[in-house]
Amino acid sequence: MLSDVQIAYETWGRLTPARDNVVLILPGLSPGAHVASSAEDPSPGWWEQMVGPEQAIDTDRFFVVCVNSLGSCHGSTGPASPDPRTGIRYGPRFPVLTIEDIAIAARQTLCLLGIHQVRAVVGPSLGGMSALAYALLFPDEVRALVTISAATRSTPFAIAIRSLQREAIRSDPAWKAGEYESEAPPRTGLRLARKLGLISYRSASEWQGRFGRERIEVRPDEAGLFDPEFEVEAYLEHHAEKFVGTFDANCYLYLSRSMDIFDVAEHGGTSEAGLGWIRAERTLVIGVESDFLFPLWQQQEIVDGLRRHGREVEFSVLPSLQGHDSFLVDMERFCPAIESFLSRV
Amino acid sequence: MLSDVQIAYETWGRLTPARDNVVLILPGLSPGAHVASSAEDPSPGWWEQMVGPEQAIDTDRFFVVCVNSLGSCHGSTGPASPDPRTGIRYGPRFPVLTIEDIAIAARQTLCLLGIHQVRAVVGPSLGGMSALAYALLFPDEVRALVTISAATRSTPFAIAIRSLQREAIRSDPAWKAGEYESEAPPRTGLRLARKLGLISYRSASEWQGRFGRERIEVRPDEAGLFDPEFEVEAYLEHHAEKFVGTFDANCYLYLSRSMDIFDVAEHGGTSEAGLGWIRAERTLVIGVESDFLFPLWQQQEIVDGLRRHGREVEFSVLPSLQGHDSFLVDMERFCPAIESFLSRV
Repeated sequence: MLSDVQIAYETWGRLTPARDNVVLILPGLSPGAHVASSAEDPSPGWWEQMVGPEQAIDTDRFFVVCVNSLGSCHGSTGPASPDPRTGIRYGPRFPVLTIEDIAIAARQTLCLLGIHQVRAVVGPSLGGMSALAYALLFPDEVRALVTISAATRSTPFAIAIRSLQREAIRSDPAWKAGEYESEAPPRTGLRLARKLGLISYRSASEWQGRFGRERIEVRPDEAGLFDPEFEVEAYLEHHAEKFVGTFDANCYLYLSRSMDIFDVAEHGGTSEAGLGWIRAERTLVIGVESDFLFPLWQQQEIVDGLRRHGREVEFSVLPSLQGHDSFLVDMERFCPAIESFLSRV
Repeated sequence: MLSDVQIAYETWGRLTPARDNVVLILPGLSPGAHVASSAEDPSPGWWEQMVGPEQAIDTDRFFVVCVNSLGSCHGSTGPASPDPRTGIRYGPRFPVLTIEDIAIAARQTLCLLGIHQVRAVVGPSLGGMSALAYALLFPDEVRALVTISAATRSTPFAIAIRSLQREAIRSDPAWKAGEYESEAPPRTGLRLARKLGLISYRSASEWQGRFGRERIEVRPDEAGLFDPEFEVEAYLEHHAEKFVGTFDANCYLYLSRSMDIFDVAEHGGTSEAGLGWIRAERTLVIGVESDFLFPLWQQQEIVDGLRRHGREVEFSVLPSLQGHDSFLVDMERFCPAIESFLSRV
């Protein structure tokens, strides 16, 4: 059991006196609660084009709340936080983290804000799993649901990729069974894990058009035989390096595993029965053709499961090229899809 | 330059007095020359069901030769071999290895056997690239060509995966910039590389049917929070462990990179022009629908390129579920495809 849990969140827009205009955003594995810029923090957020005045998630109309996942290192209590009972970082002593825990922590946050009903819960990727968990654990409190590239459970292919990411971190001698100092993290393992993440988040056809066989322009003279030579390798290196400086390795392990063990079927025997708990009036399920980590058939499974319980579901299949990450990149397709749905909520 | 190069090969069947019944098999990245069992070595080969009397590659009819790639550690000279000038393992002092080098070494081997014409060159994966190189470097010596899940060049997606495999090996402190002792190889890096290989060689749908979300039956009590829990993780672990004991890390690095840098376009400005060198009377191109490492459009590229030069090409698209590795597993589809082609050669 955790005590003195802290949860980071940000808000945009104004809460109506009736407290009935809340849109809750639950983030993916790596981002925090900073979805969009604000007066308090003018830096661009991870969904800057999606959230704002007169944008798809319209902050003139909605009171938007984004809650950083329990277990993350962007302000919420997680393995990188000190255990208040000892003052020492939880590290590997943090308890098993589930998607349900993340949903419950987000809901408690809203309760403390005096919010007991959300107009919509919106979540991509891990956040889409959290949104499913939220809607099925608190059926009376969710009027609409938007899942993006999510799933009722992970495929063995996705589990294999994430298991290998975790092994890369755990194999780094600097990981020290999770007891590394924050100044000396397992950078090498985290770099490998992030690169594998990027490979699984994008798509082969995007990279074919974007990089082809372009070589790195200036390859240093002292470059070794196996140092990066192609542009695609430089791209991976750049993004991995950026990530290593901002994300805690133990948090990554816990959040990654929460996706593997999540299974809607545990709430009713089968995925379909588990989905039966959800009573949102409307649901939008968005999937992307080029996503091989959360493929379209898994989106179809959510759609079919909800419809079999008589729920109203819209299914939006987007032909975005950027794979699982499309929701962060292909705003031309994602903004209208979400805007259109929310205009009818 | 290498001196005193040694190349391992095996043969099956009998060479006709006219020396005109040779089928040359060029292997993928990891296997050696032991394609099938024989009187000398009765252990099963890596293509046991494909090669033998009255099998698809019929050793009653053909004199079958399989040549272990230059640079491999299964008997041919490579980074794991001692440099005859110093007696010390080449290790990272081995020169850059190209697919063309592998083809030239195979051809020299046949020359030393007194063979100057092959009825067919057959190669899967890296071996398919080697077969393309063989056919374009020695156009007068190849009557028929069979490429399986090959490509005229690697996609950025495939390069990204292989680059990450190499980085996993190079990041292992035991790698020691390639100067490890053979008794203390970079096992951890090689294990990670092999697991990523397996993920890229198979297919998500195969694993969905095969593993689903099956848990490991007996998980030891002392299992850590992030130790394998799902069957798919145990499968990867089993195969990676097997591989680590049989393959040299530096050889892996050199062979892996040879696939990245191979580009038929370097033989004529474009892939199509490069393919123009090939004068085989007939070619069979086999591709697999579920292969995302050497996808079908790359098979189509070989087919189109050869046809534009007026070559006779058959294109066999197999619906195998096992991804890039299907040629090793789905013998029910591969044997008839190859048998039918060779019966007309």
